[in-house]
Amino acid sequence: MKVSKFGGSSVSNAEQIKKVLDIVNSDEARKIVVVSAPGKRYKEDVKTTDLLIRLYEKVIEQLDHVSKKEEIVQRYADIIDELNMSHTLLKTIDETLENYISTLKNKPSRLLDALLSCGENFNAQLIAEYNNSQGIPTRYVSPGEAGITVTDLPQNAQILDQSYETLYNLRSYKEKLIIPGFFGISRQNYVVTFPRGGSDITGAIVARGVRADLYENFTDVSGIFKANPSIVKNPEVINEITYREMRELSYAGFGVFHDEALQPLHKDRIPVVIKNTNKPNDTGTYIRHDREIDSTSVVSGISCDKDFTVLNIKKYLMNRQIGFTRKILAVLEDYDISFDHMPSGIDNISIIMRSKEIQNKEEKVLNDIRKHCDVDELSIEHDLAVLMVVGEGMHRIVGTANTITHALAEANINLKMMNQGASEISMMFGIDVTDAERAVNATYEYCYTKKCLNV
Amino acid sequence: MKVSKFGGSSVSNAEQIKKVLDIVNSDEARKIVVVSAPGKRYKEDVKTTDLLIRLYEKVIEQLDHVSKKEEIVQRYADIIDELNMSHTLLKTIDETLENYISTLKNKPSRLLDALLSCGENFNAQLIAEYNNSQGIPTRYVSPGEAGITVTDLPQNAQILDQSYETLYNLRSYKEKLIIPGFFGISRQNYVVTFPRGGSDITGAIVARGVRADLYENFTDVSGIFKANPSIVKNPEVINEITYREMRELSYAGFGVFHDEALQPLHKDRIPVVIKNTNKPNDTGTYIRHDREIDSTSVVSGISCDKDFTVLNIKKYLMNRQIGFTRKILAVLEDYDISFDHMPSGIDNISIIMRSKEIQNKEEKVLNDIRKHCDVDELSIEHDLAVLMVVGEGMHRIVGTANTITHALAEANINLKMMNQGASEISMMFGIDVTDAERAVNATYEYCYTKKCLNV
Repeated sequence: MKVSKFGGSSVSNAEQIKKVLDIVNSDEARKIVVVSAPGKRYKEDVKTTDLLIRLYEKVIEQLDHVSKKEEIVQRYADIIDELNMSHTLLKTIDETLENYISTLKNKPSRLLDALLSCGENFNAQLIAEYNNSQGIPTRYVSPGEAGITVTDLPQNAQILDQSYETLYNLRSYKEKLIIPGFFGISRQNYVVTFPRGGSDITGAIVARGVRADLYENFTDVSGIFKANPSIVKNPEVINEITYREMRELSYAGFGVFHDEALQPLHKDRIPVVIKNTNKPNDTGTYIRHDREIDSTSVVSGISCDKDFTVLNIKKYLMNRQIGFTRKILAVLEDYDISFDHMPSGIDNISIIMRSKEIQNKEEKVLNDIRKHCDVDELSIEHDLAVLMVVGEGMHRIVGTANTITHALAEANINLKMMNQGASEISMMFGIDVTDAERAVNATYEYCYTKKCLNV
Repeated sequence: MKVSKFGGSSVSNAEQIKKVLDIVNSDEARKIVVVSAPGKRYKEDVKTTDLLIRLYEKVIEQLDHVSKKEEIVQRYADIIDELNMSHTLLKTIDETLENYISTLKNKPSRLLDALLSCGENFNAQLIAEYNNSQGIPTRYVSPGEAGITVTDLPQNAQILDQSYETLYNLRSYKEKLIIPGFFGISRQNYVVTFPRGGSDITGAIVARGVRADLYENFTDVSGIFKANPSIVKNPEVINEITYREMRELSYAGFGVFHDEALQPLHKDRIPVVIKNTNKPNDTGTYIRHDREIDSTSVVSGISCDKDFTVLNIKKYLMNRQIGFTRKILAVLEDYDISFDHMPSGIDNISIIMRSKEIQNKEEKVLNDIRKHCDVDELSIEHDLAVLMVVGEGMHRIVGTANTITHALAEANINLKMMNQGASEISMMFGIDVTDAERAVNATYEYCYTKKCLNV
């Protein structure tokens, strides 16, 4: 059994929805389908989810919301008309929106979640109804019916473990099932949305719940590129990648598949494939627990993310002062700051974090470190970019570091920091933000084009 | 004014002592001399300090100690006879030893410190008397008279800040002054020895106290080599190095000058020179606060130390768990373990420490981490060697990392870990202990012989 998730661009209009259903109906194993809200149909278009946010804002500001609501109803009306479906669903859509507005207008964050859920929810109902009308037994299953039970904090749903048992019952349905992504139901019976990469998370949760053989994630690209295609010209697609590699890459800027969506799959080792709705015969990128490694596939991908900040701390005889680093980290913890890397010397330590982590807290954090930690020197550096070169077993292949540092040296890029731990599948290089694009191109060229890794 | 310290091999016999005094007397600025105990005269010889330890052991075991004492007296008698000096000092030596034994035999650790101090103390008296007899006004100054006041924990003396004021008065003596190294006097009036690199520390303390222009550290090599001469054949001598570089190198196995001895010099930026008693005209190696850097002197030295252990910890979504690393470090702190490096990934962290830090505590530490930190995987790896490549401004020169990783790749050496922080003057490479010697040779060749750094 496969669970297939389709992203916003794949279900943005009638034509796309037909493609999706061709894909779904062409394979008996595609039993469960998770859908997003209708995305953009063209570059300047507005996503349904964004229309819903605008509607929410009108309601909260106590302004007339009717025209905003009608824009939303019209998005679905366009699809329904193109698919020659009856207008019954449009009435449900209008009534549902008005019902949420009237009952939740005094609970803004509950209202936001309820309205946000509509984009996916209406689309799932629409797609189920249409596929059924085409003679394929298909059923809409709401997250409540499916048993996607989540924690109760608005916009930050976390799945509850009990859900997985209930979800297993989805296997017994005879029809194809269409489930809306992006939200669950709390035990307090509220609609609560997932924090990020919402529909991907629903797909992953359902795939785990039904013990799927494969979780198909359909989007508008034919897989995951080895580097950002807006930086590297025509990068290759990755054939196969591990969960851990995917997480490292998505951490450092690969947006295709959100790393949080991998978490449910991890435990039961359910493989994922990223495929293209518009080119369903392209192989796509498989994400698995393990993969075979040969000399041509040592490096899976290269990414570079900007907006990092680094705290540099010097302390003479630091390594002899037991507890010194722990004290520094305790200050960061006080300010709820998570950091990503911590390369260190004997007498100094650099703590690398996303700039947003320390934004608006900078002065306080620096003062607290000075106060509690008796440092010799303390400085902060912005505009750091982090180049991540990711590959399973990379650290076991002699020469990988050499290939990368050679590429960077030839491109005249200065390495401010370097970090590679024992169990790591990535190497981190701290560089100046102005070198970011050149660094990706230089590394890509050496890792793939010049095949330097066959040392 | 210069403070000149002479190591054990420089003052091991009459011939060496004459060389030392030629050096001292040839320069008006060499006002204050710190001397070690007589060291080995030939390979199988026993250092005076070790003879003193044997004497101590006899006393503690309540065995006859006379023959051991006589061996010590004989060491000085040999020197005194060769220098045609009177035997008066020998009587003092014998009496002092017996006096310590009878008054301190029930306070073993006090007795050990008192006996240990004799090696340096008798030698300082001997050398002062001899130089005086040669017509050069010279005076023995005991640490008590000089004002080297230290904390009271046996074998672990720490200088007290008040000492520096008293020591300044040494400037007003007209004679050349000979001070024994290795020990001070506590406020409780006990002899207490310094923990490590004892006479180097005395020299540094005195140099700071008298605000010396230069602290000369005479030993039996013409400076500090760029790599261990027992690994690399005929390595070059370093001309100039900074305190920070020296500390990194001595941390990782460069034994010439103990890094703890640098600490007193740091604050007043007193330069040090390491010189050869047997070749006093060789330039030696200068250790300063700052140095000029050009492309040929980017890398100061290469060292490799063995006996490291690494704790590898994996935790999915580690970087999102604020406080995770702090909890791990708190466990290490509970067990009084200091660590040296902590390269990390998003989901994993490696903590590198000297093996002795975790010896006999391994099971407990691992259990506590498992108990308190909810890790996914925890493993420990022994037999790690740490290659350190040290140089001021190295991280500012494009291509340094490339040169080193290239050298290691060509030598087919796998890099298990890498670490370089923003403010660092060193790069750390974790390698297998069996690769240690080859790694040093390969890196040396590329950094110095091939001059690859002139990228």
